[in-house]
Amino acid sequence: MQYFYHPDLTQPYVTLSDKESEHCVRTLRHRVGDQVRLTDGKGGVATAAITDDNPKACSLEIIDFEQNVGLPKLNLHLAIAPTKNMDRMEWLLEKAVEVGIHDITFLICDHSERPRVNLDRLSRIAISALKQSQTTLLPNLQVLKFRDFMKEQEGIEADKFIAWCDENNNRQLVTELLHFKNIILLIGPEGDFSTQEVEEAREQGFIEIKLGDRRLRTETAGLYGCMAIAMRSLTL
Amino acid sequence: MQYFYHPDLTQPYVTLSDKESEHCVRTLRHRVGDQVRLTDGKGGVATAAITDDNPKACSLEIIDFEQNVGLPKLNLHLAIAPTKNMDRMEWLLEKAVEVGIHDITFLICDHSERPRVNLDRLSRIAISALKQSQTTLLPNLQVLKFRDFMKEQEGIEADKFIAWCDENNNRQLVTELLHFKNIILLIGPEGDFSTQEVEEAREQGFIEIKLGDRRLRTETAGLYGCMAIAMRSLTL
Repeated sequence: MQYFYHPDLTQPYVTLSDKESEHCVRTLRHRVGDQVRLTDGKGGVATAAITDDNPKACSLEIIDFEQNVGLPKLNLHLAIAPTKNMDRMEWLLEKAVEVGIHDITFLICDHSERPRVNLDRLSRIAISALKQSQTTLLPNLQVLKFRDFMKEQEGIEADKFIAWCDENNNRQLVTELLHFKNIILLIGPEGDFSTQEVEEAREQGFIEIKLGDRRLRTETAGLYGCMAIAMRSLTL
Repeated sequence: MQYFYHPDLTQPYVTLSDKESEHCVRTLRHRVGDQVRLTDGKGGVATAAITDDNPKACSLEIIDFEQNVGLPKLNLHLAIAPTKNMDRMEWLLEKAVEVGIHDITFLICDHSERPRVNLDRLSRIAISALKQSQTTLLPNLQVLKFRDFMKEQEGIEADKFIAWCDENNNRQLVTELLHFKNIILLIGPEGDFSTQEVEEAREQGFIEIKLGDRRLRTETAGLYGCMAIAMRSLTL
């Protein structure tokens, strides 16, 4: 069944955003009294009745609210250097939401081509992917410089991995032991991480791993990470 | 290093296709005497010297030919019902070539929306993905009706799976035991396989499996299958 998105479902009454109202009232022709399903993108799901079918500000009364619906068993935080062509990142975001992901950080690295990252646009794409795939987890999105990200990760308890194409490195993400519910995976730009970045990550406890035995494009590597973690969670 | 594609590298001299010649001579400006690398898309890789830099028919002398380069340890045959929007299948094909796949059959099922499958266009996309990802395995592509595909599979020794969204089915592709080097994976249309098709597959020894715990879109399910098998091969 179709979900509509509202970030806070803990109140007795909610009003949908402009875009969600339009989808609910104009596109799907819901009217006063209709019951629909809402998600807050954090695993919360509500049944709600429409009290005002205003196509720009649809209001609803929450009838029933349930938490922790359809959340993945492992939380992946993917920190990935955005590609020059943002289409490829948008594609990754869409597929990552479909497979299930907790956080995505777009990482500006030493070898990054510094694309313009439009977080508003990416948020809209994520919400639309959430609704299309009928899932309940909307990832937190942010843009950070590599070193600021490293500072942010200090003291966080997680399995920390950095994808790094080094000939001497034969550890694979899919066979590494996991110790925590949270996993952080760093994926570098086309020109790879600088050796200084890898050194800094190592000091922060990141383990160098490979994503299979082929050199994947950035966005394929990102989805490989999401799917690998989703598959691991099936064996828990 | 860049590969150029020629389907047969067992001869002492080869002439590239129109498109490959243009890429080699016009785009990358290779000249007589230059040494380049060729792949036959079947794991064969050659070093060759240009003897005629004709931008429409570039000829080369094979200097060195090696077989079984970069082939996956498991051969996946993905048989998938094409989506109405062929863009999504083209995207899958591109990513599947990147990850490594042996065969793709576009399966016309009872619930298929019967899109027009342009195999020539798909072949061109596959060759371009092969070159872009610098891999050596070009999948065999075909279009078949479900029942003709079933006939084709009779007697073939392979692990045979059919993705089927049944509530009572909890077997996962990623944890099923594999007995053979060849794996066949069937993925149905948006409206799923008909119960009759599932019955026929079952009779042919296909095992019903799930691809994770979410309902994925057709093309995401296809890539999930490719990546699951690629990850399994890492543990062999």
